Amino acid sequence: MGKNYFDSKLKIFSLNASQELAKNIADSIGTELGKCSVRTFSDGEVQINIEESVRGDHVYVIQATSYPVNDHLLELLIMIDALKRASAKSINIVLPYYGYARQDRTAKPREPITAKLIANLLEKAGANRVLTLDLHAVQLQGFFDIPVDNLFTMPLFAKYFQDEVQENEEDWMVVSPKNSGVKRARELATYLSTGLAIVDQEYHEKDASKDYVIGNVSGKKCIIVDDIINTGGTCAIAAEVLKHAGAKDIVVVASHGVFSSGAKEKLEQAPISKLLLTDSIDGIPDKHIRGLEILTCSVLMGQAIRRIHENQPMSPLFKL
Amino acid sequence: MGKNYFDSKLKIFSLNASQELAKNIADSIGTELGKCSVRTFSDGEVQINIEESVRGDHVYVIQATSYPVNDHLLELLIMIDALKRASAKSINIVLPYYGYARQDRTAKPREPITAKLIANLLEKAGANRVLTLDLHAVQLQGFFDIPVDNLFTMPLFAKYFQDEVQENEEDWMVVSPKNSGVKRARELATYLSTGLAIVDQEYHEKDASKDYVIGNVSGKKCIIVDDIINTGGTCAIAAEVLKHAGAKDIVVVASHGVFSSGAKEKLEQAPISKLLLTDSIDGIPDKHIRGLEILTCSVLMGQAIRRIHENQPMSPLFKL
Amino acid sequence: MGKNYFDSKLKIFSLNASQELAKNIADSIGTELGKCSVRTFSDGEVQINIEESVRGDHVYVIQATSYPVNDHLLELLIMIDALKRASAKSINIVLPYYGYARQDRTAKPREPITAKLIANLLEKAGANRVLTLDLHAVQLQGFFDIPVDNLFTMPLFAKYFQDEVQENEEDWMVVSPKNSGVKRARELATYLSTGLAIVDQEYHEKDASKDYVIGNVSGKKCIIVDDIINTGGTCAIAAEVLKHAGAKDIVVVASHGVFSSGAKEKLEQAPISKLLLTDSIDGIPDKHIRGLEILTCSVLMGQAIRRIHENQPMSPLFKL
Amino acid sequence: MGKNYFDSKLKIFSLNASQELAKNIADSIGTELGKCSVRTFSDGEVQINIEESVRGDHVYVIQATSYPVNDHLLELLIMIDALKRASAKSINIVLPYYGYARQDRTAKPREPITAKLIANLLEKAGANRVLTLDLHAVQLQGFFDIPVDNLFTMPLFAKYFQDEVQENEEDWMVVSPKNSGVKRARELATYLSTGLAIVDQEYHEKDASKDYVIGNVSGKKCIIVDDIINTGGTCAIAAEVLKHAGAKDIVVVASHGVFSSGAKEKLEQAPISKLLLTDSIDGIPDKHIRGLEILTCSVLMGQAIRRIHENQPMSPLFKL
Amino acid sequence: MGKNYFDSKLKIFSLNASQELAKNIADSIGTELGKCSVRTFSDGEVQINIEESVRGDHVYVIQATSYPVNDHLLELLIMIDALKRASAKSINIVLPYYGYARQDRTAKPREPITAKLIANLLEKAGANRVLTLDLHAVQLQGFFDIPVDNLFTMPLFAKYFQDEVQENEEDWMVVSPKNSGVKRARELATYLSTGLAIVDQEYHEKDASKDYVIGNVSGKKCIIVDDIINTGGTCAIAAEVLKHAGAKDIVVVASHGVFSSGAKEKLEQAPISKLLLTDSIDGIPDKHIRGLEILTCSVLMGQAIRRIHENQPMSPLFKL
Amino acid sequence: MGKNYFDSKLKIFSLNASQELAKNIADSIGTELGKCSVRTFSDGEVQINIEESVRGDHVYVIQATSYPVNDHLLELLIMIDALKRASAKSINIVLPYYGYARQDRTAKPREPITAKLIANLLEKAGANRVLTLDLHAVQLQGFFDIPVDNLFTMPLFAKYFQDEVQENEEDWMVVSPKNSGVKRARELATYLSTGLAIVDQEYHEKDASKDYVIGNVSGKKCIIVDDIINTGGTCAIAAEVLKHAGAKDIVVVASHGVFSSGAKEKLEQAPISKLLLTDSIDGIPDKHIRGLEILTCSVLMGQAIRRIHENQPMSPLFKL
Repeated sequence: MGKNYFDSKLKIFSLNASQELAKNIADSIGTELGKCSVRTFSDGEVQINIEESVRGDHVYVIQATSYPVNDHLLELLIMIDALKRASAKSINIVLPYYGYARQDRTAKPREPITAKLIANLLEKAGANRVLTLDLHAVQLQGFFDIPVDNLFTMPLFAKYFQDEVQENEEDWMVVSPKNSGVKRARELATYLSTGLAIVDQEYHEKDASKDYVIGNVSGKKCIIVDDIINTGGTCAIAAEVLKHAGAKDIVVVASHGVFSSGAKEKLEQAPISKLLLTDSIDGIPDKHIRGLEILTCSVLMGQAIRRIHENQPMSPLFKL
Repeated sequence: MGKNYFDSKLKIFSLNASQELAKNIADSIGTELGKCSVRTFSDGEVQINIEESVRGDHVYVIQATSYPVNDHLLELLIMIDALKRASAKSINIVLPYYGYARQDRTAKPREPITAKLIANLLEKAGANRVLTLDLHAVQLQGFFDIPVDNLFTMPLFAKYFQDEVQENEEDWMVVSPKNSGVKRARELATYLSTGLAIVDQEYHEKDASKDYVIGNVSGKKCIIVDDIINTGGTCAIAAEVLKHAGAKDIVVVASHGVFSSGAKEKLEQAPISKLLLTDSIDGIPDKHIRGLEILTCSVLMGQAIRRIHENQPMSPLFKL
Repeated sequence: MGKNYFDSKLKIFSLNASQELAKNIADSIGTELGKCSVRTFSDGEVQINIEESVRGDHVYVIQATSYPVNDHLLELLIMIDALKRASAKSINIVLPYYGYARQDRTAKPREPITAKLIANLLEKAGANRVLTLDLHAVQLQGFFDIPVDNLFTMPLFAKYFQDEVQENEEDWMVVSPKNSGVKRARELATYLSTGLAIVDQEYHEKDASKDYVIGNVSGKKCIIVDDIINTGGTCAIAAEVLKHAGAKDIVVVASHGVFSSGAKEKLEQAPISKLLLTDSIDGIPDKHIRGLEILTCSVLMGQAIRRIHENQPMSPLFKL
Repeated sequence: MGKNYFDSKLKIFSLNASQELAKNIADSIGTELGKCSVRTFSDGEVQINIEESVRGDHVYVIQATSYPVNDHLLELLIMIDALKRASAKSINIVLPYYGYARQDRTAKPREPITAKLIANLLEKAGANRVLTLDLHAVQLQGFFDIPVDNLFTMPLFAKYFQDEVQENEEDWMVVSPKNSGVKRARELATYLSTGLAIVDQEYHEKDASKDYVIGNVSGKKCIIVDDIINTGGTCAIAAEVLKHAGAKDIVVVASHGVFSSGAKEKLEQAPISKLLLTDSIDGIPDKHIRGLEILTCSVLMGQAIRRIHENQPMSPLFKL
Repeated sequence: MGKNYFDSKLKIFSLNASQELAKNIADSIGTELGKCSVRTFSDGEVQINIEESVRGDHVYVIQATSYPVNDHLLELLIMIDALKRASAKSINIVLPYYGYARQDRTAKPREPITAKLIANLLEKAGANRVLTLDLHAVQLQGFFDIPVDNLFTMPLFAKYFQDEVQENEEDWMVVSPKNSGVKRARELATYLSTGLAIVDQEYHEKDASKDYVIGNVSGKKCIIVDDIINTGGTCAIAAEVLKHAGAKDIVVVASHGVFSSGAKEKLEQAPISKLLLTDSIDGIPDKHIRGLEILTCSVLMGQAIRRIHENQPMSPLFKL
Repeated sequence: MGKNYFDSKLKIFSLNASQELAKNIADSIGTELGKCSVRTFSDGEVQINIEESVRGDHVYVIQATSYPVNDHLLELLIMIDALKRASAKSINIVLPYYGYARQDRTAKPREPITAKLIANLLEKAGANRVLTLDLHAVQLQGFFDIPVDNLFTMPLFAKYFQDEVQENEEDWMVVSPKNSGVKRARELATYLSTGLAIVDQEYHEKDASKDYVIGNVSGKKCIIVDDIINTGGTCAIAAEVLKHAGAKDIVVVASHGVFSSGAKEKLEQAPISKLLLTDSIDGIPDKHIRGLEILTCSVLMGQAIRRIHENQPMSPLFKL
């Protein structure tokens, strides 16, 4: 049957952050996860042992650098070192979630650019390629000198809403919850042929009552689009502002559910009828948030790994 | 009088792109430009000769990588090589305009990230530090592993409008001419305490009549904010759309005037009463565009060079 | 008075791991710690802000990469990135304790060499020099291509015992608690002119009763010498074996007190009359271990920093 | 038929400088050029889009860095970046003409070594291998740390003259038109078993009448050998000097026809009966120079590409 | 018959240091040595010519960096450069003996770490992988960022003694001839289930009579274990001390026989009944040392090369 | 008295190859050589100990990489490593003679480019700058990415002949002894305003009687110019050929006297009345060659070091 993508040369390993997702990715392409142990010694140091030969293999390591981000990063870096010394033919890093992505510029004097530091560390450790999902800023690709394939979640969300929205596009509005995320919201609005509005939150630190909607959302079903749900504050406030501006219904879609402390409460108290996320970060369903629905990104990521391994172009994955 | 910033150790050189600006920068800090010749041979190859010793000196090379961008880039790279081999102590690249900045991500499959390539080439040639002015995307700082100081033009523009606007902030509106530049417009709006609107141009390739304003600009004096005026199309269309939406007056401010062919016509035909630019790219006044006013960035850049040379913090330059 | 080592060019910063030690080091050379803030966001990401200019300064960052090692490492790497971008003239890393030092070889197939990885990461981030204290293996110096000054604690311990031992050297015995640490014990024995014995623990995983002393310790006061006290197991067992072999008194000296869980109990139950440590890792006294005494390494490290900054040779610090 | 060199893994791309030559090379090995578009935006910036997948492929990019050299260089560098990010397995750069090759040393103080800079930029961008044709100085190979295969044109020229010359070797003389190119002329003289003369042009800048021939050319048919015809001055003067010294007939052979402005006139006015060139630079025939004949290098270069791709030794290509 | 390890892709070359061993290694895996010539010009410069194509091949270069170490090193570095430029697919360095290995730390101030320098030079020249035999310190693996497979000789020696020792383990004692090599001796003692003793030679520079045995060897057959026999002094003194302490019989085993001048005499005069070595360094048998026996490491090294080439795990080679 | 070039910051060290020359250089700038010991162990390994502090100093290491070239190279590389780890501020390598310079291209397939390898090794070890004397090919400068200052010996020789030649320039002829060295001979001819001839030795390997002079030397005093005297063959044959062609007197000038075995005899038997060399390689006078005269390069090199250290331009040193 020609080329066989699950031959012995493709090996997928999972570290501690993404056990569930990695299992699903491996299932989706009909293979099993490679065996490796990740121990933490009593003094907090991580020890990794790869328990099968990887000599000459193309290895994919799946690890979201989510909370606890520093531990997950070190696990990943140590794993890369181990694979390099164990003579893997190529070391492909799969980052469903790229921690520290928001530290991508020096906002104030003498700040680090941690997102670039991370890229440098991964390359230095020995990574040959990176596969990411919906990077916080597309410019992060350029932080690497090795190939980076960045997958988009927008087609997943578009497909979810497609049928319902196209019955009456005028009823719907896609909304960016802050003025810096307009481009991402614009993309979904274009997919769905809806209008676009923006919640301008620049003032909210001083006086939340000054936040307002740019655009008319009165009587509309609003889809708030964000990439990361962290404290939940941005989306919760945006929902309040939209509600006040007359929105009829409010749903939130986001690629990555970080959910740091207090997020669940904020989101449940906000006028949000549904919260749509991917499973890029393990363990979201366990948080039992009201209105939560999960769209899996594992099939998309599995297809991407298969295409990389078989030298097939990535472009078909970007279509709806 | 303590430390003397124009001592023999600080040398400023200008290549072909920025002769005027470099002269003004040198004047502003009371020094003269270093002597070097840049010849183009009959076969198009550039030859550079540095005509004074730079051994042990801190050298600043001022060169906008504007049109013709490839020639200006090669001049700069060759100059860096010459300075390195001539034993300059540090090689500081001053880029009033960063060509190829908009190619900062792979928008389509198999595209280069030319803005990163340029950063790599500058570092490889031997640059030790970069000074830029209003980078197209702040993430470009992270494309470098050497220190990058990025100056902002917004305070220059804010100061220009300050008095007039604060008489009646309600009369004014800051406008982003496209949905991807909201952050920049937000910044000026915050400085001036005005409202914010956005011209949503995502559809215009198919059908310009579908462009529309998000936000209410009726009866307002609008300040369109962009970073680069290239073909003039974005701002001209935005002005038309604003006019149609009832704007009372429309001015355009932008950091960099590239003005590729046809730009003058487009801008003069659009309902724009004033066009405010910096002199980051030489030769703009020669284009005699109606309503053009130039704010010089030479003092700001001169202060930055002086501060770098004297190890003074940059932060005071970011204040209004 | 000629050269002044606490002039404005020398700046010492402390991150979270070594606040106490850094304070003492700064005190010992008559300067103050630089101001910087290290925040942890709710999602676990570290943010560092350097709160004073470091342009052109020689910066020393003091951070033991002790528990929680991954967080302390990331803090350090991020700080280095921030200092590099903030134009520090040199970035000198002071590691009173080098985490992951024991992963310095591939003991089993497909293991990483994490101690080398850490060295690579520090260099890649931008460190220009490293100052360490009693590295687990002296070969770790060679893991770096930048200068590494490794200070020794042995003179501190030798000075402590000197007077007491030289009254009757025959009464004393220096003991290595395991067969791999003989060289370190040999050094103290040579300083103090005592005999040397070894507790051979190779078998103890299978059958502790097979451990035995190589050399005659009957009736001797034994000084067990180790570099790191982690679980306390090695020293506790060695003490038991020595006791059984007739040792009259047993004290333990070690450079670094890691004390992972259970260590306090193990050590207090063992026949150890005194436990001598340095303050290379913050917070040891708080553990209230019976018989604990702390020798400070802050003066030694302060002198080393001063000598590096003043370009004075390090060699005088290695003498008793 | 065993190994197939035009299988899907070998892809040849051409940029703007070498469309004709690349077409001929591809033809000579029975394959087609890969599809890519090279656009120049209105502001002069180059945009490249590779229009077919190159994942896992061995890619050969053919581009003479001839006039306009800076544009051709940037095209090439940007293409390399695009190929690297698009996961080409190897990126092989084919430079039929190496621009800036003559800037291979610092002739005067504080000059760059641009030929080395170019080598560094190509490596940094991501090139894995270089194939060149008759480099100006063979030492340029050493400017690279990646493999460089340098093909020679001398066998092409030798074969051209072989039959005619061997009828009567004594009638012929190979001549170096300047004292720095003797080695190249020596090579052809050895191939053809003729004598060797040199036109000593060191003085000609001050006083052309002082140029003279070293060696006796009276009554001989002279073959002037050069590598690059740029302004045509060197060969035109050499021909005059030879004529004056009694040469019977004068032909010029050269590898690369740059022909900067005025060259056609100079060469047509000189006593040159024939001008023999390769097609290393596109468009030479269009210049309609009297006596011009073109020997194609496309077959030679095609064979080289095939041999590289098939891991066959290059040495057979160096034989007559 | 499945994968064929002696196909045309695996090429083994030998330089001057290891002609014999390389021949035996090639024999052991059923292949022949590649052809290359290593000439030394009359001025002492080495010239290497590889006399068969290596394009696309996996090349293994066998060269002990034994006496004369600098010549052997340069040969090796030059060979790597030649292979890189000749387009070998991978360059694998086989170092049966790693010269300068003992300079692995700065024992005194301002000393180099030459063992690390050598690692850096090999990587910089273009080596992709290293295969070593019983490195002086296992930490040397970490001096490289490329994969290093370090083979152990201990199983060879263990197998040699196995039968004889297990008749009566109590009769035997494994001895480290100095306090720094205990770990190596411990390993053989564990393999053979014997006791362990140490000759403490720290004092011997001042007063050899102060050397003594730690542990009881009276009436035992002692196996002294070292890695390198250089001047022979360490083992000769250890044998004397053991004899004096009542040892019944003394044999010496060591991996590498360097035998610098005087070694033969020292060893023959010492109470050593047998000297067991590997053939890691060519020419040992020619020294005709009394009691010498050679165990070949060629089969072990051949298996390792085969396993690397076939991507088989190395771990089976570490078992007895 | 202004800047003081022999202050404590400038330190000059000599290794084994250039003790005499280094002494003279140090004398010429009024300083003393730094103290370091270079030992060779009995097994041939080099050990270097720097016996004074170099922290923060600008260090110049003088070492010709002459015979035995591999030992001298390793000494140099190890010294660089030691200086780097001992925190020298800059490491400046002074190579009066650059061994392996003639291996600067791949003359035959699969040859190394050893001259480039050496450059890479020096940079990798940690050299910051190189000072050379009359490099075999000027392109070697481009083999480095660090600054290289290449001094010329031609002014020394020109000054030597100046008075004698200008009495009657027509009597003299400068001659290149081989067709590849014309450029060097041309330079001296231009300095002295004499004619130029070439001995064409291309055929001599097959049939020396075919060598001949290009140009007319009958009745002339000939100055043969070469850069390196190795076996003496080239110059001896050239002298014979010139003699045969009617030369009246023949002197030889060359920068570097390598004199490998047999050179003395060849040169003394040839019709050479005088042999003029520099002292770039130690020990030439000891060879007692008939007609030998030595011009010292120590003053020139001393001035160059002083100028580098004081950041003065090098250009005055290139004038007659």
